[in-house]
Amino acid sequence: MAKKKTTKSKKSLPAVEGNMLIAQSGGPTVVINQSLVGAVLEAKKHASIKKIYGALHGIQGILDEDFIDLGRESVKTLEAVAETPSSALGSVRKKPTAADCAAIFDVLKKYNIRYFFYIGGNDSAETTHIINEEARKAKFEFRCFHICKTIDNDLRQNDHTPGFGSAAKFVASAFMGDNLDNRALKGVKINVIMGRHAGFLTGAAALARIYEDDGPHLIYLPEHAFSMAQFVRDVKRVYKEHGRCVVAVSEGISDSKGTAILAKLSKEVDSHGNVQLSGTGALGDLLANEIKAKTKIDRVRADTFGYLQRSFPGIASKVDQQEAREVGRQCVLCAVKSHKDGSVAIKRKPGKAYKIYYERVALRSVAKETRHMPAKFINKDGNDVTKAFLEYVKPIVGPLPAIGRFKGVPVKKK
Amino acid sequence: MAKKKTTKSKKSLPAVEGNMLIAQSGGPTVVINQSLVGAVLEAKKHASIKKIYGALHGIQGILDEDFIDLGRESVKTLEAVAETPSSALGSVRKKPTAADCAAIFDVLKKYNIRYFFYIGGNDSAETTHIINEEARKAKFEFRCFHICKTIDNDLRQNDHTPGFGSAAKFVASAFMGDNLDNRALKGVKINVIMGRHAGFLTGAAALARIYEDDGPHLIYLPEHAFSMAQFVRDVKRVYKEHGRCVVAVSEGISDSKGTAILAKLSKEVDSHGNVQLSGTGALGDLLANEIKAKTKIDRVRADTFGYLQRSFPGIASKVDQQEAREVGRQCVLCAVKSHKDGSVAIKRKPGKAYKIYYERVALRSVAKETRHMPAKFINKDGNDVTKAFLEYVKPIVGPLPAIGRFKGVPVKKK
Repeated sequence: MAKKKTTKSKKSLPAVEGNMLIAQSGGPTVVINQSLVGAVLEAKKHASIKKIYGALHGIQGILDEDFIDLGRESVKTLEAVAETPSSALGSVRKKPTAADCAAIFDVLKKYNIRYFFYIGGNDSAETTHIINEEARKAKFEFRCFHICKTIDNDLRQNDHTPGFGSAAKFVASAFMGDNLDNRALKGVKINVIMGRHAGFLTGAAALARIYEDDGPHLIYLPEHAFSMAQFVRDVKRVYKEHGRCVVAVSEGISDSKGTAILAKLSKEVDSHGNVQLSGTGALGDLLANEIKAKTKIDRVRADTFGYLQRSFPGIASKVDQQEAREVGRQCVLCAVKSHKDGSVAIKRKPGKAYKIYYERVALRSVAKETRHMPAKFINKDGNDVTKAFLEYVKPIVGPLPAIGRFKGVPVKKK
Repeated sequence: MAKKKTTKSKKSLPAVEGNMLIAQSGGPTVVINQSLVGAVLEAKKHASIKKIYGALHGIQGILDEDFIDLGRESVKTLEAVAETPSSALGSVRKKPTAADCAAIFDVLKKYNIRYFFYIGGNDSAETTHIINEEARKAKFEFRCFHICKTIDNDLRQNDHTPGFGSAAKFVASAFMGDNLDNRALKGVKINVIMGRHAGFLTGAAALARIYEDDGPHLIYLPEHAFSMAQFVRDVKRVYKEHGRCVVAVSEGISDSKGTAILAKLSKEVDSHGNVQLSGTGALGDLLANEIKAKTKIDRVRADTFGYLQRSFPGIASKVDQQEAREVGRQCVLCAVKSHKDGSVAIKRKPGKAYKIYYERVALRSVAKETRHMPAKFINKDGNDVTKAFLEYVKPIVGPLPAIGRFKGVPVKKK
């Protein structure tokens, strides 16, 4: 269990009086509402925060003045929503222009909003940063915070991010079952995992291994240049050894020039410049067809785990839930007591035991650019994770389903 | 909770003395090991059953004399395996020839096997039936039973089959999360569900609906001729109403001539004559591309739930686990006490309360042909299930994750 340490409070800022607005942005997670509820419950404790509004569908809801009154939700409802996957306020993928920001400030002034919280990943941190910078230029005074989340675990400054642990638990659990399925009916099984630029979630598949022969036998990450020829060689080698092969592949695997393999098949781009990689089985089918064409293996299957990774209910990581809640709470504490803006990052203390603490960091330090898996987490062939990664990820994911196996005493042939 | 009634025991047959062989066949489920363990634990109680062997990978393991001694597994291990998804003895998809049967009998004689149990779906029931008929011709005397399982729920004679309830729970849970994801980031989301000829599993997606606007908004089943034109019209209508649309589609949807839509894209066929429909994202992508081409909706995604439906650990339906265990136990009881051959079917008593009983049925009555969703479970437009289906499926699946939602009091616009 995580030992908590609160962010250092400078207590240098007087609390401002006014209303609060909170919204959610980017890809949902199964614990994003924990952060929302953590922030709302903390806000209720502070006399300086008057009304607590939620904007529907991120900054689009601000532009449309589409707010709900979160102060009128019961604790029971708040707790029920906290346990519920996906963004309860709705989400959006929208990068604000200078004109959008001006319109946003008009709305914030009209509703006397002096506390603004935006829950999201690196694109949402960029949005928060843009709004904060524009506000500075416009001399609009408010407290402006980004509350971190992303299943991709690719936010700078953070040891890990809320949402990742639960998504990683889903992926590891799925591989546990799928490995057993592949052990029963042998063949090559390729599973495509979310993670545009960072391989953390794909790497978490390695937690599924319990016995010597368990898959995933191969893991391909966006951080290591993907070679189709090496992939085919790797699969052949594993198949020869085990008579089967389970593969974990990130949706973001890229060639040596850095072009995503799937990007060649996809044309859709959002306002942050991201190419659509999820919501299609194309990459899995492409890789399966390559194995069918280049080997004599007759049973080759591919699954793309898709949106279930960020939305499957009922199996959230407990540590992830607690940390997501706390990050929301800490952001409100910072905004009331110590800082005008920022994001609260999860940091880990060195040492064997899992101990984390929360630290306010500058918005620009988490915005836009993504964090990648460090080299020490990837094996030298670029087809697996290391023991260091497993030690890193285990406490964030927490307990996994128990898997039994027969002793399997062979009967002497007659 | 299911009220149990044991199969009527004629007690007309004397128990034969000899060894027992059990094996698993066809697609795994998350409770198939419950049936295996139920049979093994019951067998241990009967003096007439001496050794308890498990054949690895179904009848292939018999032909190869690839047996393990299940009598040497501890109760602790047996219980751990019972809770573990996928076929612990390995599986196979193989239809035996007359020559295979002769070879099988040679092996059974050599190991003094007088009790044979084969856990599987309708193809495995056919295999059991073929072996039983060939044994009769060859005057080989043994007790020969099929133990039912299939996530497709398409075994004749059965109200429902072990494995279905847990797969249905996975599908319903997945739709709960995915519906929330689609509510946060609107668009069209198409999810492809397993089920070659029967729509039960796809229909179970409807259990995800809690609130008025919840998806799945459309459900397409193999039992109703699929029209691409109607599909596009349906999606447009729902999208106009809700600003979003979540669709459940069976992998086995077929055109008015009965040809599976996906079969046109797939060439792989197994020895039972089944075309490969799973392990590819092709159908989802085909349908998503059709919506993109024929509408102006800009966000269209497709996921194929794939093998996770039959293998995801840790969330099995309790009722399903209990019934799977009991079906294995009942087959052994029948074999020892009352019948030379057969399968034990799950029957449901009429009435509002969920009450089932177990009944021995003839092998030929469950072999080969599949059961379909009755017309009363499908709405007249062929794009949804009925209330009767929901009442049918609910008790088999059991409790689903709790989903919270804000009261959402709108803030008056200024």
